Amino acid sequence: MSVVLQKAQQAKAAAQAMAHLAATMRNDALLALADALEHEQAYLLTENELDVKDAREKGTDEALVDRLMLDSGRIAGMADALRTLARQSDPLGTVTEGRTLYNGIRLRRVRVPLGVVAMIYEARPNVTADAAGLTLKTGNACLLRGGSLASRSNISLTRVLAEAGIKAGLPEHWLQSIETTDREATYELMQLRGLIDVLIPRGSASLIASTVEQAKVPVIETGEGNCHLYVHKDADPAIIAPIAVNAKTQRPGVCNAIESILIDEVAAERFAPLIIEALAPYGVVFHADSTIYALAQGLDTKPSLKLTPANEDDWGREYLALEISMKCVSGVDEAIQHINAYSTHHSESILSRDYEAVSRFLEEVDSAAVYANASTRFTDGGEFGLGAEIGIATQKLHARGPMGLEALTSTKFLLEGDGQIRA
Amino acid sequence: MSVVLQKAQQAKAAAQAMAHLAATMRNDALLALADALEHEQAYLLTENELDVKDAREKGTDEALVDRLMLDSGRIAGMADALRTLARQSDPLGTVTEGRTLYNGIRLRRVRVPLGVVAMIYEARPNVTADAAGLTLKTGNACLLRGGSLASRSNISLTRVLAEAGIKAGLPEHWLQSIETTDREATYELMQLRGLIDVLIPRGSASLIASTVEQAKVPVIETGEGNCHLYVHKDADPAIIAPIAVNAKTQRPGVCNAIESILIDEVAAERFAPLIIEALAPYGVVFHADSTIYALAQGLDTKPSLKLTPANEDDWGREYLALEISMKCVSGVDEAIQHINAYSTHHSESILSRDYEAVSRFLEEVDSAAVYANASTRFTDGGEFGLGAEIGIATQKLHARGPMGLEALTSTKFLLEGDGQIRA
Repeated sequence: MSVVLQKAQQAKAAAQAMAHLAATMRNDALLALADALEHEQAYLLTENELDVKDAREKGTDEALVDRLMLDSGRIAGMADALRTLARQSDPLGTVTEGRTLYNGIRLRRVRVPLGVVAMIYEARPNVTADAAGLTLKTGNACLLRGGSLASRSNISLTRVLAEAGIKAGLPEHWLQSIETTDREATYELMQLRGLIDVLIPRGSASLIASTVEQAKVPVIETGEGNCHLYVHKDADPAIIAPIAVNAKTQRPGVCNAIESILIDEVAAERFAPLIIEALAPYGVVFHADSTIYALAQGLDTKPSLKLTPANEDDWGREYLALEISMKCVSGVDEAIQHINAYSTHHSESILSRDYEAVSRFLEEVDSAAVYANASTRFTDGGEFGLGAEIGIATQKLHARGPMGLEALTSTKFLLEGDGQIRA
Repeated sequence: MSVVLQKAQQAKAAAQAMAHLAATMRNDALLALADALEHEQAYLLTENELDVKDAREKGTDEALVDRLMLDSGRIAGMADALRTLARQSDPLGTVTEGRTLYNGIRLRRVRVPLGVVAMIYEARPNVTADAAGLTLKTGNACLLRGGSLASRSNISLTRVLAEAGIKAGLPEHWLQSIETTDREATYELMQLRGLIDVLIPRGSASLIASTVEQAKVPVIETGEGNCHLYVHKDADPAIIAPIAVNAKTQRPGVCNAIESILIDEVAAERFAPLIIEALAPYGVVFHADSTIYALAQGLDTKPSLKLTPANEDDWGREYLALEISMKCVSGVDEAIQHINAYSTHHSESILSRDYEAVSRFLEEVDSAAVYANASTRFTDGGEFGLGAEIGIATQKLHARGPMGLEALTSTKFLLEGDGQIRA
């Protein structure tokens, strides 16, 4: 039997036990996990340093090395996140509906764990602690497959967390990582129908796409955000630049940052300069359609404008960088049509004081989060009041938009009778 | 461009329009569909007769021919189902949660259609009308792929329904069927990520398994039911035989019929004869473990007992026929363990008057519907009070157990602000 299959079977057995632990038990274990991270900090940092050293020797990009690196602040951050989870209200056991049927059978629908949650991710060791905490809080068993660049960090983190959990009373194999770094192991994991209840890829667009492409187990797709800001002709001029700057520059590398701005053409002369002059000082590269290109050329910005003509490919691009496409539209109809055609259906915002334009945009834009007069940067489980966040789903089944703990649960129907048979 | 791709793109365009029709419009269209079925009955029956004739000439099994065949009663049944749907409350637009965030943004989560719903099915023409009705009620566009045996019936039904819908104001291409009968078309349909929002296979276990295996688009898995009845030592003797008979014999070919009976070994001598003597007159074949085999041999039943020793394979089999496996267990622990290992996680029932045994069974059995002291035959959207049923999901993501109209919907977050940016 392969190691992957063996671990998946062990996870399935552990999931049976995990499902029936009281909330107190799961929360105490979360606190024990947090303590263990702080206790074993020296060991964790040593292992992480080896990963970092190897990564640099391989000439890894410094941005990636930064994501890989742990320090005592980041370990404290992981521990804090686990303690916060322990304080959150319990996602299990909620009766989501209930009634007495015509024949006297008492029906309840109850929230239960999914079973075995698997995650595939890249070189961010914090995902290891995060995944362990989220699956423990939701009563699931957890099977992890981290990136090879972070293998020592992930192995040491998994070891510390798994042992702390077992000491706190969790079943053996509640948390495991697949430690081989070959691709076949990942592929095999994706095929284990009946053992893996859900697989969540966390990381780059290419990781997510390849998982969706290859997996036979159920996948929750997160992430990609080609988000739009649509500036309607009746937008409040005072909020345009602040929202454009916040949505584009606050964290350009995240999925809820905007990648494209649409402007009503009748208002382009008034509004495009406000946006361009506000974004230019951040070094933003503009991919502009012909109208906006012409308008931008006339502007005197410092530093001098990074301006290029947009082509068809730009409308679908998620730059994840200080770049943005800009396009004129004839009005709310074309804006909605363009967004529904090119968006990844993550987050979009209209700026307008016109009641009908706002209403139509909210109704007709087919995305997980649709805003009026606010930055798209709020699309986040914490900001939405959902507590801990698993990720942001861009699919429509099971979960859409920021996913709270409920996304790692299912329900079952319980029916109690006294001898009823079907007529 | 292939026909399948073209139809999927047309469906996607139609879905945009479908999503924003008022409930009145959708309900009026449902009534128009029902009227059209009755109006065009002669044409529909003629086309269906040709399918039936061909099927018989090919030597098709009469049970399958029966499922294929239409008559005026069955057409009236389809029309009635559409009229019932029109009267059901609207699944769209419900605000499932809402709050004002700390920064003043007003958040609402609203129920919306999925988009394009595709169904793959076999030789049951009634699925055509059913799928059209369910997707229309939920504001989705519908793309159908029926079995080749029913091709004329499906083409004619789709034509009548699609035209009636368009006359009632639905967008062109709201309902389409893929009329070629080659397998590549089905395969192609399963690959259209971004165009098909959900694919639901309806029919045999092999159809469902091959769809899950091949599809890259999101699939809702329905169906297979290896359901168990567990007779605990403290079961009320008066309800054992009636429930066993109802759950096994009322409709042996459906997924919520039982396929296996577990009995506490200390009670086998008392209870096994009750069950066997009650089921034998229906011609049930018993696959019994050694204890029950020995007990059964001593019974004097009419007709004489159809008894064979059970082997390991029997515990996982869905007979869908007048056959059943029977096994002794040491108690509630072994019963739960056996069910969680061999069940398809559909429906299971315990018969017991013991509080702890019932509580543990309800808590620990990992199936979509878990019963105490009732027949598993109730697992059904109508019986559960969910209204129209799409199918019974045996997966855990998105929907589990009987699926009502909500299973064909998603949600989106709407956020209204007045200039908020993220700190």
